[in-house]
Parts: sequence; structure tokens; C-alpha cells
Amino acid sequence: MMTKNIIISKIKEVKTLAILPHVSIDGDALGSSIALAYAVKELGIEPVIYIEEEIPSSYGFLPGIEFTKVYQGEKENYDLVLALDTGDTGRLGKRIDIFNAASYTINIDHHMTNTEFADLNYVQTSSSATGEIIYQFIKMMGIPLTKEISTCIYVAIATDTGGFRYSNTTSITHQIISDLINNGVDVAEVSQLLFETVSLSKTKLTGMAVQTLEILENGKVAFITVTESMIKDADAKEEDCDGIVNIGRNIKGVEVAVLVREKENESYKINLRSKKYVDVSIIANKLGGGGHKNAAGCTIEGNMEDIKQILLKEIREVL
Amino acid sequence: MMTKNIIISKIKEVKTLAILPHVSIDGDALGSSIALAYAVKELGIEPVIYIEEEIPSSYGFLPGIEFTKVYQGEKENYDLVLALDTGDTGRLGKRIDIFNAASYTINIDHHMTNTEFADLNYVQTSSSATGEIIYQFIKMMGIPLTKEISTCIYVAIATDTGGFRYSNTTSITHQIISDLINNGVDVAEVSQLLFETVSLSKTKLTGMAVQTLEILENGKVAFITVTESMIKDADAKEEDCDGIVNIGRNIKGVEVAVLVREKENESYKINLRSKKYVDVSIIANKLGGGGHKNAAGCTIEGNMEDIKQILLKEIREVL
Repeated sequence: MMTKNIIISKIKEVKTLAILPHVSIDGDALGSSIALAYAVKELGIEPVIYIEEEIPSSYGFLPGIEFTKVYQGEKENYDLVLALDTGDTGRLGKRIDIFNAASYTINIDHHMTNTEFADLNYVQTSSSATGEIIYQFIKMMGIPLTKEISTCIYVAIATDTGGFRYSNTTSITHQIISDLINNGVDVAEVSQLLFETVSLSKTKLTGMAVQTLEILENGKVAFITVTESMIKDADAKEEDCDGIVNIGRNIKGVEVAVLVREKENESYKINLRSKKYVDVSIIANKLGGGGHKNAAGCTIEGNMEDIKQILLKEIREVL
Repeated sequence: MMTKNIIISKIKEVKTLAILPHVSIDGDALGSSIALAYAVKELGIEPVIYIEEEIPSSYGFLPGIEFTKVYQGEKENYDLVLALDTGDTGRLGKRIDIFNAASYTINIDHHMTNTEFADLNYVQTSSSATGEIIYQFIKMMGIPLTKEISTCIYVAIATDTGGFRYSNTTSITHQIISDLINNGVDVAEVSQLLFETVSLSKTKLTGMAVQTLEILENGKVAFITVTESMIKDADAKEEDCDGIVNIGRNIKGVEVAVLVREKENESYKINLRSKKYVDVSIIANKLGGGGHKNAAGCTIEGNMEDIKQILLKEIREVL
């Protein structure tokens, strides 16, 4: 409680303030940052959200995008810089200059791995999303939950919990969402934009990828392949490969799913997913990659068939 | 409040009790029925849930399946029969005999179209699911929310709100879910079983269906075709076609999506979906079918190309 009060006092006493979400911005980093920007603006400060790259078009519907600015190397000395949803300074990218030049820095996050890199750190790992923490701050600041603020926090929490499906979703998560809906979130519209809008090229790529599906080891292993020519034919981008490995993982009876993504020069990017008991990080580590128990990856060179055999051999050992 | 108290008194005074969910049982009808059965059992009554058909395997993970019994034409006279999530007596199928032979009948539902067919009717249309209403009854009855009861109500609400995404999802919905999680629902496990488990044949059929995708009218119309031979090649069932039309609907920029499902003898089952402004029920009605603004269907005979042209002509008129 103490740290929270100090953070609110700090925000209230400064004249210039910047917010830094992490690189490869996602719904939680962006939604939390915009919600906080709206709140800070209510206090009479004009906040800037410096972002590393353009906002992905899938989040283009969010209100308050006008607070954001792609960082171009500006030399600015802010009274206060807040890093949001950012586990370590590496995730600030080039904007580390803005962070280092600040008179005072605050770090608000929910990642277990947070390195507490700021002057003041508030890391609440029991929160499903940084959005939950920002919600608490805004309530404590006594700033009304407008429809815009509520929508941004809703998006932050909904994305980081996979639509309230992951194990980080708590009783408190749903209490907060209940309050946000009371304050004007259009659930159906936001959900459709967030979870049910897929680009034509991603739809095409997904269809092609499913055609390559191979089921092995008595239904327990699924292989899906995406080649360079499929990407071209679907007019797809690299990011359209995201989530394709889950098609394999979601098949009933499958424990380990593999996505083999052909890159240039006989190099292959491998995504590994497991459903329950297999620790795919063991496989990824052996092959020079890394990750977590249920999601890991690595890069291998060679020819496609050899690579599949190598992966299959490793999978058999842990299956 | 009055009706609710009378219903609880009735339940408490009887010796034999049967619960009837609607035909083509879904997550809400089944989850609500089992939750109520657990509660009734706490009062010392042995309830039976009569179902019309076998429970779909996707709900096989629910606790309390042992309360259910596929109706085989038994002639039984229950003290009390409760119809759950059932808009009219037509949705009781053959089990109308059990309903008619009961000493007293109660109808608990949330459908706007409910015909109030029982001795006592409690229809709360503001509830996203009948599960919300059963939750309220169980709380009023003072019966503790066990993990089993909480899981059944969670499944009821999660399915009827499309995973908390549809416009029927309210602030109260999330308050209830918050309480259910406090009482032991394993969110990640249930969500995976409910939303992220797809059969191999459905995965294959989906991949094949996407290969037939046609985008017309400047990206606003999507056609997907499922033929009899695709069903055979994927070793799929009719129910595996469910949801395939949404692949078209979810494509960015698409307003109207059509699934043309080839049946026998040059007969085609047509599913129509719209995203926002087009009323597809107008098209379906013209072609001898029916439905709602955003979801409708019809059956047409003829050859595939002619049918597509007929549909396209009708769609152009309302686009």
C-alpha cells in the first residue's frame, strides 16, 4: 500500500511525464499505458507514451492512440518516466535513453522475472496483467473510470489472460472486469475486434498449414509445416505464423505439437508446444533453443526430413 | 423474489424429482441441470436428469454425469419435474410424457421466447445463461458452492456467452464467475477442454474448407464450400461443419459469410452470417429459410454454381 501511495504522490507532483511500454508491444502493455495516460491527463499533465515500433493494426481500434509516439531518438529529460509491463531494461529498446535521462523512474509490472530496475518498483506477480494493477492505481487516484479507460484496461486484461482462459485468471480478474463492464465496455464489439478478426492472408496461410498436418506416435504428436512459398502464396507476413502451432496442440489426444517454419538457406525455426506433462523446453534446450515447459523453440539447419527425424527422436524420449 | 421462494419451497417438500434440459443439449442446459441436481441431492432427494440423446463427448469431462439418464420411454410419475433452459414443450422431445405425468411442473429459463408452459414459470431474460439463474437459486437455498457445482455453472455460463464474448455478458455474469473461481473452478483446465480441444477430423475438414474460400464484392463477401467428399476424406461428421462459416465471417473486412454445404441429390444447406449491418434473415426468408439478423440459413436445390449466383444476387441487394 505504501509504495502505491508514494507512486501516486510522485505522479501528482511532476510537470512532465512519459510512459514506456515494452518492445514488441502487446495488448496489456498498450492498454495499461493508454489507461494510465488518460488518468494522468485528468491531473493536468500531458503524458507521452513512447513506443519502440508502430502499433500492430489489430490494436488500432483502441481509444487514446493519440497519446503514443514512435521513439525517434529524441533527447528529452522528463520529471518522471514510468516503465509499464516491462520485466527488464532490455525490453525498453532504444528508449532506454529516455529512461536514463529521467529525474525519477518508476517500474510497474506483474512479471515474476522483473529485475526491479527503477528508482521505485511496484511488481505484483499475482495480477494476471499490468492492466489489473493500473486499474487499482486509477481507483486509488479517485479518477473516474470512463468508457475509454475501461476499454483499455479490459483489452489489457483480456489479452494477457487469453480471453480469461489462462491459469493466471483469478477471482479478482473477473471482479475488475465486472466493474469495467459497468463503466461502459462494449463486450461484444471489443471481443470481436480482439479475438474474432483475422486477416485474409492469415486465414489462407492457416488453411495451407493444416494441409501439411502429420499425426504421429499414436496421435500424441502433431507436425505442421509452413514453407516460404506458402507465405508468398498467402501474401502473408512472418507474424501470421503466430498461433499456427496451437492448431496442432488443440487436437484431441495430441500432447506435443511442432511447427516447422522454413526460413532461408535450409534454416528452420521450430515452435514446440505441449498440452500437459511433456516439458518441451528440454527438447529446445538440447537443440540450442529455450523456453518454458509448455512452450519452447529453437532454430535448426539442415534438410526438412532430417530435422523432423531429429525432433521426433527427441520427442519420443520425453513422451 | 416471490416466485423464487415458492420454487425453493416446492423443491424442499417433494420426494421424487426429475430435471429436463432441452433436446440437442448444450453446455448451459447440461451444466445447469447437473448443478441443480447436486443441490437437490444435498436436500436428501435423489434427482434424475432425463436427457433426449447421449451427451456430446465434448462435455464428457463434467462432474455429475451419473445424474443423467437417456430417456427410453419410461412411464414415471414424479412429484416435481423441472424443465431447464427450455423455451417451449417442443424442446422436451419424447420426454414430454415425463413432464405431463408430473404432479407439479416448474420452468426455469432465460430465453426471450419462453412460452411459460409449466405450473410455475421463472424466466429471467436478462441472464446470459440459465446457469446464472441456477447459481442464484443455489445461493438462496443456502447450499454451499462445491467445486463440482461451481464447475458446472462455470461451463453453463462460459458456453452460452461464447467465453464471455457475446453481448449477453454482463457485469453480473463476471461477478458470478468471480465467485465460482473462488469456489474451486480450474479455469485453465476447463477452458482448454471447452474451447481448445478440436477433433482431428474437424481440424482436417476446417483446413480443406479454407482451401475453397472465395472472397467477392471487394472483400465484403466470403464463400466457403464443404462437399460430401471432403466430409469423407476428413472422416468427419455433420456436426464438424458447425462454426466453419465463422472462418469467413471473422476475416477482416468481410460483412457477409456463406457456407455452402453439399448434401445428397443436388441439395445444399446454406449458412449465412453477417458481422454488422446486413440482415441475412431477409436473404434466408426469400429462399425459404429463416433465422436472425446476423445468423440465418436455408436449403436450396440445384447445381453449385447456380446456387452461388442466386445467393450472390440476393447478398448484393442488401450489402
